[in-house]
Amino acid sequence: MTQTLRLGIAGLGTVGVGVVKIIRRQAAMLEARTGRKIEITAVCARDAEKDRGVSLAGYAWETDAVALAKRDDVDVFVELMGGSEGTAKDATEAALAAGKDVVTANKALLAIHGQALAEQAEAAGQVIRYEAAVAGGIPVIKSLTEGLAGNEITRVMGVMNGTCNYILTNMEAKGQGYNALFDECAELGYLEADPNLDVGGIDAAHKLAILSSIAFGTKPNFDGIDIEGIQRITLEDIHQAADMGYRIKLLGVAQRSARGLEQRMQPCLVPVNSPLGQLEGGTNMVVLEGDAVEQVVLRGPGAGEGPTASAVLGDICDIARGLRIPTFGQPATMLEAAQPARTGLPAPYYLRTALLDKPGALAKVAAILGDAGVSIDRMRQYGHTNGTAPVLIVTHKTTRAALDIALATLGDTDVVALDPVALRIEEV
Amino acid sequence: MTQTLRLGIAGLGTVGVGVVKIIRRQAAMLEARTGRKIEITAVCARDAEKDRGVSLAGYAWETDAVALAKRDDVDVFVELMGGSEGTAKDATEAALAAGKDVVTANKALLAIHGQALAEQAEAAGQVIRYEAAVAGGIPVIKSLTEGLAGNEITRVMGVMNGTCNYILTNMEAKGQGYNALFDECAELGYLEADPNLDVGGIDAAHKLAILSSIAFGTKPNFDGIDIEGIQRITLEDIHQAADMGYRIKLLGVAQRSARGLEQRMQPCLVPVNSPLGQLEGGTNMVVLEGDAVEQVVLRGPGAGEGPTASAVLGDICDIARGLRIPTFGQPATMLEAAQPARTGLPAPYYLRTALLDKPGALAKVAAILGDAGVSIDRMRQYGHTNGTAPVLIVTHKTTRAALDIALATLGDTDVVALDPVALRIEEV
Repeated sequence: MTQTLRLGIAGLGTVGVGVVKIIRRQAAMLEARTGRKIEITAVCARDAEKDRGVSLAGYAWETDAVALAKRDDVDVFVELMGGSEGTAKDATEAALAAGKDVVTANKALLAIHGQALAEQAEAAGQVIRYEAAVAGGIPVIKSLTEGLAGNEITRVMGVMNGTCNYILTNMEAKGQGYNALFDECAELGYLEADPNLDVGGIDAAHKLAILSSIAFGTKPNFDGIDIEGIQRITLEDIHQAADMGYRIKLLGVAQRSARGLEQRMQPCLVPVNSPLGQLEGGTNMVVLEGDAVEQVVLRGPGAGEGPTASAVLGDICDIARGLRIPTFGQPATMLEAAQPARTGLPAPYYLRTALLDKPGALAKVAAILGDAGVSIDRMRQYGHTNGTAPVLIVTHKTTRAALDIALATLGDTDVVALDPVALRIEEV
Repeated sequence: MTQTLRLGIAGLGTVGVGVVKIIRRQAAMLEARTGRKIEITAVCARDAEKDRGVSLAGYAWETDAVALAKRDDVDVFVELMGGSEGTAKDATEAALAAGKDVVTANKALLAIHGQALAEQAEAAGQVIRYEAAVAGGIPVIKSLTEGLAGNEITRVMGVMNGTCNYILTNMEAKGQGYNALFDECAELGYLEADPNLDVGGIDAAHKLAILSSIAFGTKPNFDGIDIEGIQRITLEDIHQAADMGYRIKLLGVAQRSARGLEQRMQPCLVPVNSPLGQLEGGTNMVVLEGDAVEQVVLRGPGAGEGPTASAVLGDICDIARGLRIPTFGQPATMLEAAQPARTGLPAPYYLRTALLDKPGALAKVAAILGDAGVSIDRMRQYGHTNGTAPVLIVTHKTTRAALDIALATLGDTDVVALDPVALRIEEV
């Protein structure tokens, strides 16, 4: 394995440029570490004329990523375009068909089409590496797939969307509402073209689907994830959570029990003194729990040129060093179909609603919760403003199913002025 | 690579038994993940009759680890005996000479003899893996060597001795002194046979020497580490640090600058709100900083049967999957001799001493510091008890060299009643 490893890079946005910079600047270091020269032979992006702040001299230009993927002088197709459909998918399939290994940062592609791509790659003896697809610079794919390979994984959790964590921590730190911080993120360029990918929890759920598959030996099952965004979180929720010793995080949890595979990406309350509770700004954190290792917590930058390029380079070095393992840590043909849990493990919940100014309103709420088997730990009603009174409730442990029955029944009454916000209080 | 991978395990203490348990219990999982059967063919320990709580039926018994290492039916020699000299070293050398790969948890062996062993292994085409040698269950060797392979590492830091962190955090939490907690650790079995390995910082320094070598491409240089234990830390230090917003941790730092390679394992003050400051009990934490990735923080159990066995199994799975990389991440023959920095980077320091009840004593201390170029940020003298008065000083940034000159001069005066304690305040 002493011959040069030749890369074709599709996509020259922030991450692609970061990868080019490292390969140009650190050629000697990379060769010392992998025993091979690592070189870019061809690149592909929409605009060949744009100044990207790095020299692209000496690289062949392709305008078509599929053509790049098939080039004879490319050993590894590095896909940094993004998107689950279209060119990224076509070019990845073409690369595998042409006998190339693939390195990608594309979480959506793997969450949606990972199973088919893994089967194609493994049938052809190729590998797909995707460290940059989950939690940016944190080597979490490697830690889970390789470092913890001796563990039966019991739970995976993570805060994996920096924009959501930036909004939530700054609501508390700056006392600004969700909308103001959403606008700030838009101005700072922190949001995807479709912001719902971020604040709606979809981007983070793509990542969770990938981690789940590795952790539990199941086919990636994005559709099986309960996804809820952070759009309805108010300053009131943030402050109430803080009063009780919690912070609100968009937290992904994947857990397998006798009930099946539970996958959630939802705003949750976590203890303020836990590593997850203390995570601020755009930083990511993944918690891996296994039967032998107990708990490992990984923290680092979830995005940005350097951190994401670092993850891509880690994959490239792995391939240069000859590491060849199945995409999701075991042969794709052995992955089981995920059996989504009908109902998640019980937990306490935080509820916020508002009641109309009617006699017996609060009693009705309490009765409906009790009838559904949801027991109340704490309840607080505030004074009426404009005819409605905010109500906060913390329940004892209950299943989401029981809670949903109670919330549906509440909705049918004539006393509730606000569709309730229900946030799980997660044991971390 | 579909044939069975056959292990010979030397050492059946806590970790060895943990490894045996996982291999017996998770045979199918390990085969699914690595594509090969993983089997133990032979074991070696002092007492063949002892009940270890796990069946050893079907394994050949050796009383001599060297003989185990040479067996024809062993592919991987798993060294879990410990100790830098004697049998562990002899058997590891014998295994490599006999064409076996080696998996070890032995930090002392690698810190002291790692260079020679790596050269022997690489010349013979064998690999040495040692994830369990540093920070127990945390996959830090893998993260640094592989995950961050695209980075020029700028700094590595870690709290890597759980016993010391247990003592330091419980001094604050329980208000007990060092000696009481040392005795508690002895009773709980948290201490090595030679407790100075723990509280003297030597065990943690072994780990730092290994991380340094990978991070900076230098030969492991344990002798180049400035080591200081936690034995002189008092409750007073803990409380004063807390008052200023810090916690005291036995912190390892390795950093390369134009001055050379700086390696320290010393009690330091770190901000209470930093991940390192928040680390409690026996948990370990390693902070990896690179030019691309910025900062990654890894946290997990630093010891114990399950976590350490998890790390050993990770290495075994890597070998089963065909991962073959040089011991310290690049060929041992390419590692440079470490050039220890003559003086470390400047930092503020916390000083505690006691003065005799003599006129002008405090003025003399202040003058000596000033003459050495050490500028005082804060100073506090308490009332005299039994003829001596405690004095606390926080300096502005200074080099350790300047500080040492001041402390030596202080020692020559007739006013100091207590050899000063000097703790670096680390920017984390």
